[in-house]
Amino acid sequence: MPKISNKGLAMPQSPIRKLVPFAEKAYAEGKKVYHLNIGQPDIKTPQNAIDAVKALSLDILAYTRSEGSDDYRHKIAEYYKGVNINVAKEDIIVTTGGSEALLFAFGSIMDTNDEVIIPEPFYANYNGFSTASGVSVVPVISKIEDNFALPAIEEFEKLITPKTKAILICNPGNPTGYLYSREEISKLAKIVKKHDLFIIADEVYREFAYDGNQHVSILEDEFGLENHAILIDSVSKRYSMCGARIGCLVSKNKDVISTALKFAQARLSPPTLAQIASEAALATPQSYFDDVIDEYVERRNLLIEGLESIDGVKVAKPKGAFYCVAELPIKNSDHFAQWLLESFDVDNETIMVAPAGGFYSTPNVGLNQIRIAYVLNKESLKKSIHILKEALKVYND
Amino acid sequence: MPKISNKGLAMPQSPIRKLVPFAEKAYAEGKKVYHLNIGQPDIKTPQNAIDAVKALSLDILAYTRSEGSDDYRHKIAEYYKGVNINVAKEDIIVTTGGSEALLFAFGSIMDTNDEVIIPEPFYANYNGFSTASGVSVVPVISKIEDNFALPAIEEFEKLITPKTKAILICNPGNPTGYLYSREEISKLAKIVKKHDLFIIADEVYREFAYDGNQHVSILEDEFGLENHAILIDSVSKRYSMCGARIGCLVSKNKDVISTALKFAQARLSPPTLAQIASEAALATPQSYFDDVIDEYVERRNLLIEGLESIDGVKVAKPKGAFYCVAELPIKNSDHFAQWLLESFDVDNETIMVAPAGGFYSTPNVGLNQIRIAYVLNKESLKKSIHILKEALKVYND
Ligand SMILES: Cc1ncc(COP(=O)(O)O)c(C=O)c1O
Ligand SMILES: Cc1ncc(COP(=O)(O)O)c(C=O)c1O
Repeated sequence: MPKISNKGLAMPQSPIRKLVPFAEKAYAEGKKVYHLNIGQPDIKTPQNAIDAVKALSLDILAYTRSEGSDDYRHKIAEYYKGVNINVAKEDIIVTTGGSEALLFAFGSIMDTNDEVIIPEPFYANYNGFSTASGVSVVPVISKIEDNFALPAIEEFEKLITPKTKAILICNPGNPTGYLYSREEISKLAKIVKKHDLFIIADEVYREFAYDGNQHVSILEDEFGLENHAILIDSVSKRYSMCGARIGCLVSKNKDVISTALKFAQARLSPPTLAQIASEAALATPQSYFDDVIDEYVERRNLLIEGLESIDGVKVAKPKGAFYCVAELPIKNSDHFAQWLLESFDVDNETIMVAPAGGFYSTPNVGLNQIRIAYVLNKESLKKSIHILKEALKVYND
Repeated sequence: MPKISNKGLAMPQSPIRKLVPFAEKAYAEGKKVYHLNIGQPDIKTPQNAIDAVKALSLDILAYTRSEGSDDYRHKIAEYYKGVNINVAKEDIIVTTGGSEALLFAFGSIMDTNDEVIIPEPFYANYNGFSTASGVSVVPVISKIEDNFALPAIEEFEKLITPKTKAILICNPGNPTGYLYSREEISKLAKIVKKHDLFIIADEVYREFAYDGNQHVSILEDEFGLENHAILIDSVSKRYSMCGARIGCLVSKNKDVISTALKFAQARLSPPTLAQIASEAALATPQSYFDDVIDEYVERRNLLIEGLESIDGVKVAKPKGAFYCVAELPIKNSDHFAQWLLESFDVDNETIMVAPAGGFYSTPNVGLNQIRIAYVLNKESLKKSIHILKEALKVYND
């Protein structure tokens, strides 16, 4: 029998995936499971996006240009102007989700065994895209005690080698909920210019900045990163339309764009129906976002308060996105998460959480942490916190 | 300024792309251009697929499972049973076009510098996916004189090295229109079993088999390739819904499926709207295909007759798909194709063709060949042939 590639063997399993069989067993036993483990919001997709698809009038569902339709790219550029990011449609390649934008970025700037420095904990699939691209992730640890702030610049500089091609940040962060300040972005700008690196900024949660904090983009003019910055974006979370599979790669570096375009041409076209929906979504009124953000802030407050009220739980207060990392008074969150599904319930209800180990690439770090996504309504969140509290009592006995 | 990767530099440009500026100049000059250069059919998408999208009723456009929705995979398996391919939904991963299925297949079975043998001329983007995956393409030349039949098995065996991991075929072929016979597939089956290789079969044109010929799939039971075969499929051409971006990877080798699934998980989900459309498309009545095939056969006959009537033109008669490769009495089809757009017209009309060089990976082969896609109606094809005939007279003067 012919053999799988080493790359294929090395591809990480989704950290959540491992738990799915246990969740399925729990359903089979008639348990209700609250899903705190996934980034699929329960927020409604804007009606105008759905209506645009329902109003479809075409005879042939054809490919669009590989870089995305002209109209849509033009409108994305307009959207960026509104958030202080000065780009033109020529700087934008529409991709199949932010996921594909990451893959194109990695392929365009890194070869086999090149290195990318990423503050950890980080979005678990960065590991997958790195493995797929043959690239090594070099983690720099950010700490729950510091609310997961940017590690000191010296920590980055210690890790830079001739193989380092880029620094990758996620802002606001998944799983940390951390929002980088203007000063932090300035520091990063200096270091990438000094060492002539690329900086990839995953800003798919841009709109989700709380407590009056403004999101600061790597592509704002003041940082002078025209040659260095590659921005990763997505409609998935912004408009709660994860299933569209539309994102984009944005850069003012013409070589990056012309190279990413070659990757885009090989796969022909991003999804056409979803571009129609995404273009319509751009007209979503501010009131939609105001409501959504109010909702997320209330959920976050409820969640953080709830977690802080549990003995031995430490939590970093998120300033953005819709995740938080909590440290629990346990040894191994993989085991705990499985136990929650297999062996615990309160009135026949339990919770599914994401063990945080998968968000670190340093081995044996974060083993007592979990990621919670507050993508459920407040009633469900309240119940979930109660279940977690009771579970910890029993588990630690 | 930080530098692009070697991989990025090596990524091939689309062989058609180079000509786009010249086509745009031709439009700007008010010329009409007949596009014989692209695989975007002018055939209508089945109405039931479009209606399914228009009838959309959901609040949240959510991710589906990474391997595609259960219902859809179940129905795809049913479809396969109808074409003598015995698979279950567990053997299927829904992908973002056949393009992504190719990328997953390459990643799952090949490492950097591994080799894949491909009969050439071949679909140009195999070069792109190989470069993106760090894999080397080893071409085995099929000849226009033989109608692009499968090269002799000895030709394959000469090329097999310890680095060879797979043979890749496209059946029916783009750009050749060649349809492999049962004997040819049997021969391939023997050789991959003997040398313990994978065989990737790109069958995205399965339905387009003409003149009473039956398409023969690599996955039919009689070939015994359960462990070896990876089938690449797509709704793009079958239902003229290229813009959907839905395809699939099919294999009975469980390791291949579980590995490809890890690549699929990293990018989260195939497009949801397009899965809805594609699931509906599966109910397309046979009469739709009968009509489409009648139309393609008429176009092909008209095209081949027309081409054969031109002095010095040699053409391989396609038995499937909707492309043909023609050898012209010229030296360099890149130059000729550009000249057609820049410097030639008949009553202010000209044609755009794909120079065949990009479909070969052996340098300097096929330079006097072009690929013609018969995706235009008969009237346009007639005019196009007339333009080609007149153009060759002038060009060769
Ligand atoms: C930080 C981050 N980046 C990128 C993505 C990819 O999302 P998509 O491919 O749906 O745009 C996600 C999805 O959860 C994410 O959390
Ligand atoms: C032979 C072949 N394989 C695969 C593809 C990829 O098509 P898609 O990604 O639209 O399914 C094409 C498209 O032209 C093709 O001709």
